[in-house]
Amino acid sequence: MRKNVLVHTTFVCFLLACSLIYVHAQTGPLPSWNDTAPKKAIISFVEKITSEGTPDFVPSDERIATFDNDGTLWVEQPMYVQIAFIIDRVKQLAPKHPDWKTTQPFKAVLDDDMRAVASMGERGLMELMAATHTGVTVEQFQGIVANWFATAKDPRFNRPYNECIYRPMVELLSYLRVNGFKTYIVSGGGVEFMRSWTEKAYGIPPEQVVGSSIKTKFEMVDGKFDLMRLPEINFIDDKEGKPIAINQFIGRRPIAAFGNSDGDQQMLEWTAARDGPRLMLLVHHTDAAREYAYDRQSNVGKLDKVLDEANAKGWIVVDMKRDWNRIFMFDQ
Amino acid sequence: MRKNVLVHTTFVCFLLACSLIYVHAQTGPLPSWNDTAPKKAIISFVEKITSEGTPDFVPSDERIATFDNDGTLWVEQPMYVQIAFIIDRVKQLAPKHPDWKTTQPFKAVLDDDMRAVASMGERGLMELMAATHTGVTVEQFQGIVANWFATAKDPRFNRPYNECIYRPMVELLSYLRVNGFKTYIVSGGGVEFMRSWTEKAYGIPPEQVVGSSIKTKFEMVDGKFDLMRLPEINFIDDKEGKPIAINQFIGRRPIAAFGNSDGDQQMLEWTAARDGPRLMLLVHHTDAAREYAYDRQSNVGKLDKVLDEANAKGWIVVDMKRDWNRIFMFDQ
Repeated sequence: MRKNVLVHTTFVCFLLACSLIYVHAQTGPLPSWNDTAPKKAIISFVEKITSEGTPDFVPSDERIATFDNDGTLWVEQPMYVQIAFIIDRVKQLAPKHPDWKTTQPFKAVLDDDMRAVASMGERGLMELMAATHTGVTVEQFQGIVANWFATAKDPRFNRPYNECIYRPMVELLSYLRVNGFKTYIVSGGGVEFMRSWTEKAYGIPPEQVVGSSIKTKFEMVDGKFDLMRLPEINFIDDKEGKPIAINQFIGRRPIAAFGNSDGDQQMLEWTAARDGPRLMLLVHHTDAAREYAYDRQSNVGKLDKVLDEANAKGWIVVDMKRDWNRIFMFDQ
Repeated sequence: MRKNVLVHTTFVCFLLACSLIYVHAQTGPLPSWNDTAPKKAIISFVEKITSEGTPDFVPSDERIATFDNDGTLWVEQPMYVQIAFIIDRVKQLAPKHPDWKTTQPFKAVLDDDMRAVASMGERGLMELMAATHTGVTVEQFQGIVANWFATAKDPRFNRPYNECIYRPMVELLSYLRVNGFKTYIVSGGGVEFMRSWTEKAYGIPPEQVVGSSIKTKFEMVDGKFDLMRLPEINFIDDKEGKPIAINQFIGRRPIAAFGNSDGDQQMLEWTAARDGPRLMLLVHHTDAAREYAYDRQSNVGKLDKVLDEANAKGWIVVDMKRDWNRIFMFDQ
């Protein structure tokens, strides 16, 4: 009897071990990445810089990884999500501003004439920004943004915008953090537009989100000290702005940087100029069936100069169609 | 024999328990703080906000604590440490600039005529800043600062400047972190002047240091992409600038803020205007024998308006002489 129990127990242990190995194979790092070159390069880099006692070892406090957001972590087509927010907010506020029906750029937004909005260029956009993003305290604005994300949906995927995020990139963020990295967003988008939801979506807390910003003013609001949002640009976190902001906010040069457009070129160049190991990666949108396909000719997320540079210098370029077996968090 | 062993073991355990209790009494939280009101208020606050299931509980991701540096964490008398750095650097660079011998404000520095330097006001200081803090890359400047701290000493205490830090405050930083707080420096000092040593001194990594900054430019330096420091102010992190910077860098209102001068008033006011529990604390320098005694009349670290506000509103005011049984890290 005893021997039978032993044999039985051994067999159960064997089965358990097999199933653990199976589960491991199913849930190893980066399961939504195909076993193509980018996944191999990422894992090889992480294994290299975490190997203690080797010349490539990087102490964990230097493992800073910076990620662009629009088009790198979530969908940016057919327009940046923040533009969709502006449009909805103009429509929401319109009853209080009857003059908007006849005044540009508001009229164009209310008429859903996006071509006219685009034609008004930066000045029109700044007017829309001022009307929809300012004149409230920072905490009031956080509430407005959170409410919008709770109800608005991406029209093509019919999901809340902050669920239209790329599963392979969320896996990558998590894989890097498990390996001692501190992960940051460094985005041209408005910092206060992102901070309310990035922790839940990406595991990135507000203090690790760097973005474009407007000026604020410290003042008494309703009898309490508060910060009022002003209609004045503080910082544009794009192109050269990205390395400048990374240095200002983080104070260290990243060892890994991830982007998808020419706006990320300088962040990748600065990372590439680091002494020691470093990783530069671009997401190339090549999958019109599952998401979008665009690069050199696109108005949104134009990928041109930095694609040439990446190819010339051997940086990793993810071909979304080839390299990702799932795109979104909601893909099974 | 067995019984003897048991008795002996019990006795050893008893001795061990006694010694643990003794060690605990010696090394409980904040050992360099006397058992006066400030220590009790701090511990009571931390116990309150960490008590799960109570209305005062604050989730750990909201436990943001911000600390001024000059005069709050380290000595700021008789002049800010960064001024001592400027003076040493002018002297170091002088052989390359023979005209400085006859040109102000450099002449005054080379002549050790601090009265003349002070009389030149902000413009003179800006010229000295430009000459000593710019024209190098951010990483070169970090090296210059690190070298200076490795050799320069506070003349009164005859220790490296970054060892003249307050032991009670280092204990407080550590106590807060053990209780789930994220601790930040929010200082009027230059951010790049602090980041190279704050982790070792205070356990605060570079990315949790917020300070004043100059502009930088992304450019090719010696064939590599780098950030060059420009002679142009980017942001002054003082007074109203402190809440503005906290919101910009951290994106959350602190639940605890620590300062020592009128430059910290708005940071404390903004913290005090938070809903829910919050702690505001001022360090009052009252100990001329062990450190310095100064407040309303001081040119450096003037403590006047915010002292009245703290007294009126019941914020914690540390009386250094009464409340701290040791001042420095090097005090036994």
